[in-house]
Amino acid sequence: MPLPKGKHNCITDIDGVKVGHVTLYEKITNEDTICTGVTAILPHEGNLFQKKMRAASHVINGYGKTAGLVQVDELGLLESPIMLTNTFSVGAVLQGALQYMLRQNKDIGDTASSLNIVVGECNDSYLNSMRLQAVKLEHAVKAIENSSREPVQEGAVGAGKGMICYGYKGGIGTASRKVDEYTVGCLVLSNFGKREHALFADFATKEMDTTDGSIMMVIATDAPLYDRQLKRLAKRCAAGLGRTGSHIGNGSGDIAIAFSTANTYDHQSDSQTETLSFIRDEHPVMNKLFQAVIETTEEAVIRSLKCAKTTEGRDGRVVEKAPLE
Amino acid sequence: MPLPKGKHNCITDIDGVKVGHVTLYEKITNEDTICTGVTAILPHEGNLFQKKMRAASHVINGYGKTAGLVQVDELGLLESPIMLTNTFSVGAVLQGALQYMLRQNKDIGDTASSLNIVVGECNDSYLNSMRLQAVKLEHAVKAIENSSREPVQEGAVGAGKGMICYGYKGGIGTASRKVDEYTVGCLVLSNFGKREHALFADFATKEMDTTDGSIMMVIATDAPLYDRQLKRLAKRCAAGLGRTGSHIGNGSGDIAIAFSTANTYDHQSDSQTETLSFIRDEHPVMNKLFQAVIETTEEAVIRSLKCAKTTEGRDGRVVEKAPLE
Amino acid sequence: MPLPKGKHNCITDIDGVKVGHVTLYEKITNEDTICTGVTAILPHEGNLFQKKMRAASHVINGYGKTAGLVQVDELGLLESPIMLTNTFSVGAVLQGALQYMLRQNKDIGDTASSLNIVVGECNDSYLNSMRLQAVKLEHAVKAIENSSREPVQEGAVGAGKGMICYGYKGGIGTASRKVDEYTVGCLVLSNFGKREHALFADFATKEMDTTDGSIMMVIATDAPLYDRQLKRLAKRCAAGLGRTGSHIGNGSGDIAIAFSTANTYDHQSDSQTETLSFIRDEHPVMNKLFQAVIETTEEAVIRSLKCAKTTEGRDGRVVEKAPLE
Amino acid sequence: MPLPKGKHNCITDIDGVKVGHVTLYEKITNEDTICTGVTAILPHEGNLFQKKMRAASHVINGYGKTAGLVQVDELGLLESPIMLTNTFSVGAVLQGALQYMLRQNKDIGDTASSLNIVVGECNDSYLNSMRLQAVKLEHAVKAIENSSREPVQEGAVGAGKGMICYGYKGGIGTASRKVDEYTVGCLVLSNFGKREHALFADFATKEMDTTDGSIMMVIATDAPLYDRQLKRLAKRCAAGLGRTGSHIGNGSGDIAIAFSTANTYDHQSDSQTETLSFIRDEHPVMNKLFQAVIETTEEAVIRSLKCAKTTEGRDGRVVEKAPLE
Repeated sequence: MPLPKGKHNCITDIDGVKVGHVTLYEKITNEDTICTGVTAILPHEGNLFQKKMRAASHVINGYGKTAGLVQVDELGLLESPIMLTNTFSVGAVLQGALQYMLRQNKDIGDTASSLNIVVGECNDSYLNSMRLQAVKLEHAVKAIENSSREPVQEGAVGAGKGMICYGYKGGIGTASRKVDEYTVGCLVLSNFGKREHALFADFATKEMDTTDGSIMMVIATDAPLYDRQLKRLAKRCAAGLGRTGSHIGNGSGDIAIAFSTANTYDHQSDSQTETLSFIRDEHPVMNKLFQAVIETTEEAVIRSLKCAKTTEGRDGRVVEKAPLE
Repeated sequence: MPLPKGKHNCITDIDGVKVGHVTLYEKITNEDTICTGVTAILPHEGNLFQKKMRAASHVINGYGKTAGLVQVDELGLLESPIMLTNTFSVGAVLQGALQYMLRQNKDIGDTASSLNIVVGECNDSYLNSMRLQAVKLEHAVKAIENSSREPVQEGAVGAGKGMICYGYKGGIGTASRKVDEYTVGCLVLSNFGKREHALFADFATKEMDTTDGSIMMVIATDAPLYDRQLKRLAKRCAAGLGRTGSHIGNGSGDIAIAFSTANTYDHQSDSQTETLSFIRDEHPVMNKLFQAVIETTEEAVIRSLKCAKTTEGRDGRVVEKAPLE
Repeated sequence: MPLPKGKHNCITDIDGVKVGHVTLYEKITNEDTICTGVTAILPHEGNLFQKKMRAASHVINGYGKTAGLVQVDELGLLESPIMLTNTFSVGAVLQGALQYMLRQNKDIGDTASSLNIVVGECNDSYLNSMRLQAVKLEHAVKAIENSSREPVQEGAVGAGKGMICYGYKGGIGTASRKVDEYTVGCLVLSNFGKREHALFADFATKEMDTTDGSIMMVIATDAPLYDRQLKRLAKRCAAGLGRTGSHIGNGSGDIAIAFSTANTYDHQSDSQTETLSFIRDEHPVMNKLFQAVIETTEEAVIRSLKCAKTTEGRDGRVVEKAPLE
Repeated sequence: MPLPKGKHNCITDIDGVKVGHVTLYEKITNEDTICTGVTAILPHEGNLFQKKMRAASHVINGYGKTAGLVQVDELGLLESPIMLTNTFSVGAVLQGALQYMLRQNKDIGDTASSLNIVVGECNDSYLNSMRLQAVKLEHAVKAIENSSREPVQEGAVGAGKGMICYGYKGGIGTASRKVDEYTVGCLVLSNFGKREHALFADFATKEMDTTDGSIMMVIATDAPLYDRQLKRLAKRCAAGLGRTGSHIGNGSGDIAIAFSTANTYDHQSDSQTETLSFIRDEHPVMNKLFQAVIETTEEAVIRSLKCAKTTEGRDGRVVEKAPLE
């Protein structure tokens, strides 16, 4: 039985989660077009460094330049927004998000420890003149500042502006499911696949000549889980991705990050020990959470196509909206 | 475009690969029934210790008791048959396969090094009186001796005798695909899933009350790949599994092992260095190999249902053949 | 500053931890000698299946046949004794420990789920006629039954009977350290190294002609830690091992398992959620726990030599006690 | 027996390997001092994107912000310089190295695929006003351009300018060993440890009040190895680190990267398959390569102290040269 959808079928259905976009689009010359952007996912509305969240990642295929996963996996904590952008803008977005966090926290890198920023990326170079590195650190700051609790704008926006999925315009997609009193949400940045591989539609037409592409998948939940369990959630994204038809191509950076808003961790504390609450792994609700990850990943991919508009990029290249309702 | 099937749509389509079963079935008392077995997959027809093969594994979900993966992943080599059985028979089958190998190689554990045996398992305790540990080491030896290059017998045979998949009788399934001059084959031991989760059929009937179960997936290919690449193949099993509808339940040991018959490695050699040949990761044929893994995993699961017969086990429990053609 | 030692400088200084040995020694023929055994480490005094413990493992070098790590790492739980033996007895010891647990728990594999047994091993074939597989499942049961809270017998006993370390007689060693109100203990099964590599003594004499060997390291603590943190502890064993002089040879199975007695987990529960208490990763006590792991691993290796006696094995081979006080 | 040192006891003893530094030092105000830099390690003298090298990484402790490891581990390839800098300059250095590579390769991100840059870091915020983010992308470009085959300048230079090791001035250190016809080199960026932990000297004096710090370790060799084997080398760094006395603190990013110059991989090729040559894992030379990794890591750490000079940083803080000859 498919699970019931969340209120807005959106990752922001998880209480506190905010999403913000900055979209860049400009024809520079006959050849060059800026067609890219930044998307920021904030796990809660407070100070992300001061109040961290349990998190984990899973690399389904590692042809990708995502930054920040090493520390997430060591400490099981997320202490920054999750930033999404194009492949060549990881550095700029890293700096921008860092700058934002440093402004907010005068002690980081002074009396406090350092800070780990997570940045994911896909390659939008078919449409976007990616070599021009149009994304500046200000755009990352702006994406964070733009973030809101509103339903997420999907399709060819933010980091999704120049992305292509199953041979049609892709980008940002999201979905959510209710699991008893909990909610699971997924937001993807989709940029992979050939038309003939799609299992959710009959795209049996001429293929585009694009490379393998990638997908970033962000899972949020308010279910009380800890990092080992969140990695289990992240691993289920592979099944959701498989359901849409992905072959997980060689050149694809297929990376999942999952966090729970239920077990926050204060940066500083006087106590030596902490307590965390977690769902028993063998409780039936855990399997429903897994199901929710699979269903939302699948639907978020499809929605990234449904919501995207036909887009013209560099060299006059056009990627069409998928023939989906 | 789906890939063309191999000659017999079977893992033994890969040259040299052999499969053998031992099936145990006996009603002991009104309550107890032995309904289990052993399946052996031999990567080639020669001495497996003397001529090893490049291999790798991937744990999709680790609720499982598989033995031997640590060394496979360290050395990237397979030097034994891959044995499949029920959860409580891993020890006996390990001993049996070891005994077979020791007989064949008088030097192992004497003048030569030790030996690593791979044993995978699923839990058949719904039908099989698993606590009775009916599988003896002789059965493992026999399964190896039974192995042949013939098309594999599928369904409720060998290790598959007592397994249940998507609420119907499962067990052994296999499929193969041609990728240019190469062949990829998959053999599964299926034992997972609820009826309502199946995506390949409408099983919308009353559920059985079984636990999460597991699946072992063995990928064989004659394409020249090395261990890092074989791990990439193994990881694609998750997408194939996802396509059938699996939620990769908490209690599921979902484990994939992949080997290539193209890069053998002699146990002993006078030379310091070896050469191996491998397909370039970004060559288009690699993506087709990934596709072949996904398609064969999906089909092998479905075939394990199609080929299985209604089976009665302990306590008079009956698991029916799936309503599939 | 070195940390203070625990009460008996022993893994059983951690409350509840029990250790038991079975030692097998018999000259069979002029060539063959049985010189091996089994050692069981029980994490607490109760029913290990009903009351599980947080645990994790780390493979420093994976040339080893250890069973049970896949599930430990997936669920972060230990639900069996940790059994140590020789390489070719993993199967028998697995069966024996399983049998013991099945007797104790009538529901496992019937109405309850399955059971994961952890078995570690080293290769004692220089002294022991390992091909004869003298260890039977009864010996595993007996080792468990022999377990006690007493200070551990070290050296050439239990699984350590036939082991060789740095060219001298090795085997079982243990050590413990106090870290504030907590205790960390390590027990090793040592079986690696060349004389010239030892950093803790001047063994600059003629080398023995042995293979690379292995080491199993078991870390126990009563500090409240969870699986991610226990993996961090397990990883520190590599530094302790390095301090003794190990080169972590190719053929070495260097594997660490760590568990905490502070966060038990009931097999069954009516509640959906659990709570666990854990030390904050950045609290200074955590670094002391790491230090304790390093110091106890180092000392346990050295003690395994100090406590071992000169031993004669198969083919009249003799391995001498190290010239250490 | 310790292995013989390489010609200059330096990572550049491996044919083709180049190292370049940019050192930044300026007192800005009474409080703020720029005391940091960038170090670039180039695996060969040609175009790094066009001719890639087999590589792997190992995370000993993941409290670090290193970028680029995900793809190195997926493809087993290094296609950029390895850049080292301070924690808050990863973004800038990533952009700088990218810019350098884009200038050199007009097709990247246009007709060719994307590019993966590796950047490692340690936290120099005790001496360096790290929040000012003084490292600009030009400094990364300059460090690459400064690279040469000359013996490496060690100590408080490049990325090592502001680093502290065992309570004394640390930074860049290097060492090399000959293993038959091969050479193994290690370069470290050292920034960890308390005085009392050092095993190589008696630093039993007043401790500095610094945080856990980190260490980046880069292993280069001309021995023909592939990525799985290079990961084995990288893992041995933990033993070398342990020998110096490290406790691998919680807040330490202890990360090793290893590459071989012997198996290059052309970015483009007309052929479907490649060949690679590799040393047999069980050949005795492999253990000597492991030994070389351990010895060079240990010595490189010590040399980073020996070669560093007393340095004054922000807030008038001074870190002294270690009392070592």
